[in-house]
Amino acid sequence: MSGFVPFRRMALLGIGLINSSLARVTRKRGLAGSVVAHSRTRATRDRVRELEIVDEVADTVEEAVRDADLVVIGTPVSAFAEVARTMGPHLAPGATVTDVGSVKEAVVEAVAPHLSPDISLVPGHPIAGTEHSGPDSGFAELFEGRWCVLTPPPGTDPVAVEQVAGLWEAAGMQVDRMTAEHHDRVLAITSHVPHLIAFSIVDTVTRLEEQLQAEVMKYAAGGFRDFTRIAASDPVMWRDIFLANREAVLEMVERAGADLEELRRMIREGDGDGLAALIARTRDIRRGVIAFHQD
Amino acid sequence: MSGFVPFRRMALLGIGLINSSLARVTRKRGLAGSVVAHSRTRATRDRVRELEIVDEVADTVEEAVRDADLVVIGTPVSAFAEVARTMGPHLAPGATVTDVGSVKEAVVEAVAPHLSPDISLVPGHPIAGTEHSGPDSGFAELFEGRWCVLTPPPGTDPVAVEQVAGLWEAAGMQVDRMTAEHHDRVLAITSHVPHLIAFSIVDTVTRLEEQLQAEVMKYAAGGFRDFTRIAASDPVMWRDIFLANREAVLEMVERAGADLEELRRMIREGDGDGLAALIARTRDIRRGVIAFHQD
Repeated sequence: MSGFVPFRRMALLGIGLINSSLARVTRKRGLAGSVVAHSRTRATRDRVRELEIVDEVADTVEEAVRDADLVVIGTPVSAFAEVARTMGPHLAPGATVTDVGSVKEAVVEAVAPHLSPDISLVPGHPIAGTEHSGPDSGFAELFEGRWCVLTPPPGTDPVAVEQVAGLWEAAGMQVDRMTAEHHDRVLAITSHVPHLIAFSIVDTVTRLEEQLQAEVMKYAAGGFRDFTRIAASDPVMWRDIFLANREAVLEMVERAGADLEELRRMIREGDGDGLAALIARTRDIRRGVIAFHQD
Repeated sequence: MSGFVPFRRMALLGIGLINSSLARVTRKRGLAGSVVAHSRTRATRDRVRELEIVDEVADTVEEAVRDADLVVIGTPVSAFAEVARTMGPHLAPGATVTDVGSVKEAVVEAVAPHLSPDISLVPGHPIAGTEHSGPDSGFAELFEGRWCVLTPPPGTDPVAVEQVAGLWEAAGMQVDRMTAEHHDRVLAITSHVPHLIAFSIVDTVTRLEEQLQAEVMKYAAGGFRDFTRIAASDPVMWRDIFLANREAVLEMVERAGADLEELRRMIREGDGDGLAALIARTRDIRRGVIAFHQD
């Protein structure tokens, strides 16, 4: 962070929770000379103009990236290839491209082919969020104390990597680097599979008879209520994450399914000692999480 | 609540999160003339004496229930039968017995056979809690604005039912009545199965190689982190709940498993439309929960 030089002009493509939070912290802490934002949706562009969180709103991708020394892709992952193809020929010479997607292998595959050799691609994942989405939901403090993972492919210009790392550190994050593949495996466990299971359980409730469904909502306490909060996240974003990280997600779901089967067996057979031992074991993981995060 | 007359002497058997919170709100709002507590564990009894949240700590169940016009069983469910057998012959004539267990069919089966005909059994479930346990974790406001379900068997003295309902209303709760069987089915969905799945997923992480496990704890954000909080609950309490509500839990886990299988198929086959539709559907349930609870 010591060597971080603010960017001259930052272009934000897509302006949901993460990019609108980045816009806010960038303005607050002077992390770029100017910020331009583009959204594919006209209503979102109008809303961002009203919010006055960026210096300029561009109607097209081409216009947004022109003259930007940093481009941050913050659209759903399924739009990355199209965004990259559109912006490729219009990027300023020597510009750096990064992103905030929750999967990283797919990002390189989608974006890299559309960039000329003088452009640096530094894929990134600021691990922060809430269940809310859209430009209204962002706030400058979102990144404070959280982790950001960068997955630059071998051979990426180290100066570009340092600058992107410096940006997130200036936004309040701690930055780690790893391979895209490893990132995707870790995130499948910490985020993707828990979300998948929350969606699944909440969907199970949508299939219950209406009367029972109403009672479930009424008496939802800890447990199901937490699941509904997790499951309230953006459908398109999550569809894209599951499909883009398909293999790691399916592998982990399979492991989780086998462990759940073991738990069911214990309940079916009345194996109280096994149940209590398993539940007690999970407390160690909770302690580990608390040690890292002071929940 | 209008007709609630404070109890003369309330006996709390087991003094964890719920009963120690009941002790605190009872003192704060004058819901009983005096409160006596018993715990099987000497260390807990000593701690409750130090905390000064009750008027008296009894070393035995017999001593605790003598002269009490209300007995509240707050032990793990597996201890209910033994507690009932021990206290049965020592209950004051006409006393009311209630409990705070998370399952209700098993309670009647365990407790009723040990009570003489002049004793009223009003099984109850104040649906409130945190992931913490023990007498230190209680607080007087725990019940505020939450639901309490009473499941009095047919023929229970209506005056006793009114008195127990009045107690929980005076503690800040809304009270509903239903059959024990229906309660257990609803709670399997809202609480038991979500906990089971949280335990299962967190346990899956305990089986990962050490290095990956450390990274999962480090990068745990929304999702897995929420699961670890849910899974931090008391092992004995949850073992007992799963075993006591075995059938409803297994039935719901089976349904959930089938729905999860469908989600896996969508991911495997790249069915993006199906995924987005399912995720969007879960938002309606979230809205319903918010409408009931103002999360």
